[in-house]
Amino acid sequence: MDKPSLPSGTRDFTPETMGKRQWIMQTIEKQFRLFGFEPIETPAMENLKTLTGKYGVEGDQLLFKILNNGDFLTKAQSADLEEKNSKKVLNDIAEKGLRYDLTVPLARFVTMNRDKIQFPFKRYQMQPVWRADRPQKGRYREFWQCDADVVGSKGIQSDADLALLYNNVFEDLGLLVIIRINNRKIFDAFEEYLGGNESLIRFLQCIDKFDKIGKDGVEKELHNQKNALLFWNCLFSTITLKTEDKLKLIEEFAHKNNINCSVALDEIKAFFQLLNSLPICNKIELDFTLARGLSYYTGTVYEVIPQKSQLPENFSIGSIGGGGRYDNLTELFGLKDMPGVGISFGLDRIFDTLEAANILQKSKFIAQYILFCPLDELATEYCFHAVQKCRKNNLSADIYANNSKLKKQLDFANNKQLKWAAIAGSTEMDSETFQLKNLITGEQKNVSFSELINTIRN
Amino acid sequence: MDKPSLPSGTRDFTPETMGKRQWIMQTIEKQFRLFGFEPIETPAMENLKTLTGKYGVEGDQLLFKILNNGDFLTKAQSADLEEKNSKKVLNDIAEKGLRYDLTVPLARFVTMNRDKIQFPFKRYQMQPVWRADRPQKGRYREFWQCDADVVGSKGIQSDADLALLYNNVFEDLGLLVIIRINNRKIFDAFEEYLGGNESLIRFLQCIDKFDKIGKDGVEKELHNQKNALLFWNCLFSTITLKTEDKLKLIEEFAHKNNINCSVALDEIKAFFQLLNSLPICNKIELDFTLARGLSYYTGTVYEVIPQKSQLPENFSIGSIGGGGRYDNLTELFGLKDMPGVGISFGLDRIFDTLEAANILQKSKFIAQYILFCPLDELATEYCFHAVQKCRKNNLSADIYANNSKLKKQLDFANNKQLKWAAIAGSTEMDSETFQLKNLITGEQKNVSFSELINTIRN
Repeated sequence: MDKPSLPSGTRDFTPETMGKRQWIMQTIEKQFRLFGFEPIETPAMENLKTLTGKYGVEGDQLLFKILNNGDFLTKAQSADLEEKNSKKVLNDIAEKGLRYDLTVPLARFVTMNRDKIQFPFKRYQMQPVWRADRPQKGRYREFWQCDADVVGSKGIQSDADLALLYNNVFEDLGLLVIIRINNRKIFDAFEEYLGGNESLIRFLQCIDKFDKIGKDGVEKELHNQKNALLFWNCLFSTITLKTEDKLKLIEEFAHKNNINCSVALDEIKAFFQLLNSLPICNKIELDFTLARGLSYYTGTVYEVIPQKSQLPENFSIGSIGGGGRYDNLTELFGLKDMPGVGISFGLDRIFDTLEAANILQKSKFIAQYILFCPLDELATEYCFHAVQKCRKNNLSADIYANNSKLKKQLDFANNKQLKWAAIAGSTEMDSETFQLKNLITGEQKNVSFSELINTIRN
Repeated sequence: MDKPSLPSGTRDFTPETMGKRQWIMQTIEKQFRLFGFEPIETPAMENLKTLTGKYGVEGDQLLFKILNNGDFLTKAQSADLEEKNSKKVLNDIAEKGLRYDLTVPLARFVTMNRDKIQFPFKRYQMQPVWRADRPQKGRYREFWQCDADVVGSKGIQSDADLALLYNNVFEDLGLLVIIRINNRKIFDAFEEYLGGNESLIRFLQCIDKFDKIGKDGVEKELHNQKNALLFWNCLFSTITLKTEDKLKLIEEFAHKNNINCSVALDEIKAFFQLLNSLPICNKIELDFTLARGLSYYTGTVYEVIPQKSQLPENFSIGSIGGGGRYDNLTELFGLKDMPGVGISFGLDRIFDTLEAANILQKSKFIAQYILFCPLDELATEYCFHAVQKCRKNNLSADIYANNSKLKKQLDFANNKQLKWAAIAGSTEMDSETFQLKNLITGEQKNVSFSELINTIRN
């Protein structure tokens, strides 16, 4: 018999890991609700025609496709099969694929349910997505996204609110982060200056790699494009400045080149004005070098990275959240004029970062319950009934699942790091009591059931 | 452009539906934890060799298979492709499939993690599963199971405990149910009497259909098997009796036929003895006609059906939960001597039943938050800051996402059935107050921020 195994890039989650993951998700979800977001869920499987063409050529290749059921080859063309043309055969044998992100399903959902929805529609969604990426450290083929979007919103207050959502979640998680902010309208204003739309896109793709290839790398790629290089140098020179000086520098550069980027700058100013004087523990930084490669963003863009102070020196993870404003998300599905803004939390990378920062200490996430230990079979019913009474009193309790010696039962409780064991044999049954043992201190005393409840509650 | 659509048999869940589903799942999960179960999760994708052959021939056909990524046809045999032999080609182009239930993944998980696990291992798991069944009312291709299993347990206290778990969950959900109990060892004792193992399996498959085909249907199928018919008549005649009389009748029938089924009867007696005198609001009924078709059960079996009293007369749904004891679950993966017992809650059928019983009233599940309505753009920042202060006080709050007239903002709040709106313009800003409007009574009063918080909290 083969040893059982998991598909590469996928993981089981043990109770210990689940405890940590649930705590992170509950922390995120609590803030989603405090911000007035409401949950939706969409199916794991989507029609391939919903997914294909939304994530670029590379994205299409990373989609997991689901084989049609039954005799799937009947529809395939013999000629395509003969030449083993996977691409052509694919269309005839697979109609469904696994969800690749939560944004395209949201666009489909909004389009299909537009008549039932009150706009602005604030939805959150916390579900796994699947990508056939090459698995490596921090990159999985099944991973969770936690998204919050405001669909049908034009006001900058939504954009600023989402920065606060990031701040509040990471504050609750105990992780210091930098929330980087930019506005894509800045780049749009320089489109002509850079040489048209295609040059702009190439420029964005280039500076998007800044974190990976560094200043030299960007300059090398742009070396024969004079304007691009000048613009990049201006953007780069703002990095260390204060927000108002950053804005001033860009304003001057634009003015010098007869470019009007006041719409973008006004949005940025309004955004930061709203955050002014609020208690914010994380850094919310205007970063003009931030591009966010995805092409559908049209306004504010966000990216979250952990601050280095809490983390080991060699720890590197990239961004643990990102998002932005879009004007045309649902247009792909035929619904026009539906602007929105959304952000995403990368659960798995957040998990890895919190682990590295020693924030997920084990002891917090161990399930606690009172283990009732009958000394013999006669005491089993006595303990069994006490267990039920505990649960009715909202205390987690259990009876050992086998008829075993006390030592074995207490070893089990100790190995599980349980705090309380309640032991009973004929003596305790006669006096309607239990030996309540504190497994941490070793202290043990004879108590009635109501004393037992009170001791554990205090 | 094509209208977007969903794969057949799958569903989107709107916020209203999600509110109800989350309430049901939280109710189940709360009891799982009170009973000392701990969560695990397994990936949606499993290797096909893990899944295939575990659910019978029909089950294999209902598995969703995932196409290998990249140029998937290269590995396929030309001859198989030429004759369009889907079955043979399948093995060469698909290595993974979607989870079909939570039991086989549990067996794989336990086998792979046996060294990390403390046994008895009480795990719960709440995740979707996928089956390519023909979609129909109450049957979906993506649906959720909520399972609790005690792996490594021999004692009958685990079996009785799971009946109480069913009772407590449905008590909390407010749905009256019948928890039907039987023990497969009864049938095993009659194996020889029925004519050997194959006859026994056929007998179980036949009486498994009792709910669908009725007494006549069963008798028709068994008409030329004298012993099977006699046994069936004995089982059937117990239905209306009290538990002790049921046991007595089977005992007498076995005795008359020189069959020893005392092991089974003792287990059943011990099971019901443990439940004796406990407060149980649902019916836990010994039902000797209950077979539970799945062949891996070896002891106690469970099935839950709703009581008719709360439901419309024509409502029919089948079982909303089921489970049983198994001796050899992990043997398929090479791990022997790992007996266990488990039950499953069918979330989607429970949802449909609760809806039919009018238990999921809409009002309970509407997200509530305070909507701050600025009268003009100047008041936006003032309201925006108040919103953040509410959230820091653990009150859900939001600001309307667009700059709109007050009427539009209040219409939105009313349509969403929100209770509170806090309105502010220059007058309120000057006096540092808000017009707090109760949208249900229409009452409105001028309040400071702390009065606002207090009013809403009370």
